[in-house]
Amino acid sequence: MKTFSKPHVAVVGATGAVGTTMLSILEERDFPIASLRLMASERSAGRIVETKWGPIVIEDLATADPSGIDIALFSAGGARSKQYAPKFADAGVAVIDNSSAFRMDDDVPLVVAGVNDAAITSHKGIVANPNCTTMALLMAAGPLHDAAGLKSMIATSYQSVSGSGKTGMDELERQTEFFAEDLSALASGDWEDPGGDLYQRPIAFNVLPLAGSITDQGYTDEEWKLVNETRKILDRQDIAVEPTCVRVPVMVGHGIAASMWFDDPVSADVATEILASAPGVQVWDDSKVPTPIDSAGIDDVLVGRVRETIGFRGGISLFASGDNLRKGAALNAIELAELLLER
Amino acid sequence: MKTFSKPHVAVVGATGAVGTTMLSILEERDFPIASLRLMASERSAGRIVETKWGPIVIEDLATADPSGIDIALFSAGGARSKQYAPKFADAGVAVIDNSSAFRMDDDVPLVVAGVNDAAITSHKGIVANPNCTTMALLMAAGPLHDAAGLKSMIATSYQSVSGSGKTGMDELERQTEFFAEDLSALASGDWEDPGGDLYQRPIAFNVLPLAGSITDQGYTDEEWKLVNETRKILDRQDIAVEPTCVRVPVMVGHGIAASMWFDDPVSADVATEILASAPGVQVWDDSKVPTPIDSAGIDDVLVGRVRETIGFRGGISLFASGDNLRKGAALNAIELAELLLER
Repeated sequence: MKTFSKPHVAVVGATGAVGTTMLSILEERDFPIASLRLMASERSAGRIVETKWGPIVIEDLATADPSGIDIALFSAGGARSKQYAPKFADAGVAVIDNSSAFRMDDDVPLVVAGVNDAAITSHKGIVANPNCTTMALLMAAGPLHDAAGLKSMIATSYQSVSGSGKTGMDELERQTEFFAEDLSALASGDWEDPGGDLYQRPIAFNVLPLAGSITDQGYTDEEWKLVNETRKILDRQDIAVEPTCVRVPVMVGHGIAASMWFDDPVSADVATEILASAPGVQVWDDSKVPTPIDSAGIDDVLVGRVRETIGFRGGISLFASGDNLRKGAALNAIELAELLLER
Repeated sequence: MKTFSKPHVAVVGATGAVGTTMLSILEERDFPIASLRLMASERSAGRIVETKWGPIVIEDLATADPSGIDIALFSAGGARSKQYAPKFADAGVAVIDNSSAFRMDDDVPLVVAGVNDAAITSHKGIVANPNCTTMALLMAAGPLHDAAGLKSMIATSYQSVSGSGKTGMDELERQTEFFAEDLSALASGDWEDPGGDLYQRPIAFNVLPLAGSITDQGYTDEEWKLVNETRKILDRQDIAVEPTCVRVPVMVGHGIAASMWFDDPVSADVATEILASAPGVQVWDDSKVPTPIDSAGIDDVLVGRVRETIGFRGGISLFASGDNLRKGAALNAIELAELLLER
């Protein structure tokens, strides 16, 4: 594995919700940077962004030359990753890709920093960042799996609109204003449809039991990610995962309710101890349950409601909440970059 | 069982969220009423409510004489039900109680109209209306249980604030206005706490993975209701139920994600057929998934995302959404009253 002490870094998709978060986290963490380049689509090219490393002109990804870049943090959507990440990798760049484009490729490690760090060493130019919902879940499931062997899991999500990018946040804001004019209409069912570009039904003051698009067997791509990414990250193909992904009217912060069963059943007390000592995890007790807005803007994933299952005995149920733009995306990408730095 | 052709009716708790919904549903359904009395706490006593049956002065429940009432619809909270429902029953009134006070009493039938109607015949003065979340879930689980025998279920809720009454709706409205001033603060984590009377954390733009109060084994009273009421309504004590109850920023409409396993496994197609022909249920396909605001203001419970489980094979996963004030409370109570009417 190629490592770097002070790398030349590029952020690709620098103007998106995750890209801008990447920039602030690079600044916050004093990430050692020899030079920083920002890239985005043609639409944003030419714009100047003020950074800790001076003003930077956004380059057009389509024409940018990757030569000289050591690490590129990609968050420009799956299509652009598919098109440009291999080109960057061929030019010797270590690409950390936040899209789903390469996550299930056999020669691309899929890494939750703090959970399966060792997997990154096998990369051949591209490292994949897991899906934001998987990330929050795995921060809790990973340490428990290490201790007890995860056999099966039911996971039901409460995903914020920023998981759909800035468009999602704008849609929630606009629809909230629309409905706020007359909230009583929502109770009577006499509401007018505020319209929306992104979601098939209104998301403000509502929940949408469909995140992503239906792909196979009635499950969405988001749901299949929970299944397949969990198995790959925990390196166990026979983990049974039953997923339901639901969008909720929250700006930032993905919640996930999960029940898990293990090879060696653990008590709630033991599970709580394991989680409390896991890196990047805070356990909150029932007096201040972990909620999405409490997890927004912080690095740690919050876990609470840790309890022994009462149906299907022998398992653990819990609720986890994490900032989908930070640990769920930008922060984990930068933690992966840090794993690539010489120590 | 005593039945009535045109009963003298009382609505107890007539000024609350459920009580006012009871009044509108009585009007909508042309419920045959000989006389209508409205009762509430001392605070509301003396107020005049305009109804289809003329203006009615609200009586103080504490001093009201139940004589002459045939059916009383109680939705005044558990404490008042405990205190006054037996007094009404002793006076010969058939009490339909929306609180949790008597639900688990052996001689009180717990009935979801359309699911276990026959149980009502055994009442001894008090019939209990199930919890709003149980109701939405059982409208889907009941018909499937009849066909295939429900063995076990994982249920994860998305409960609206009106489940906490008008206070919950006011709190969501006030906090929404508070946060709407600067939604970007929610993304950065730099938000000020809007304060709240009801919920331990803000509910606007957030989800709270704790609905009700923790009682036993780390589960809340709301969660235990899902377990115990399901078993009683479906008359099968060995059904395994793993519940998680979460409050969401929705005004009216409870959603619930559930995975169910049966004695005789059914396919998604068969399950969909069963649900589509069940009374009070609409099956919505993936092009218009069932959401809480779609279910607000209507009588039917919406069911969608019906699919065969991919983890723990052989089950059915689905999402149900129902108006917690209507089918989840007022409507079911009135349907139970209709069961008491002479046919």
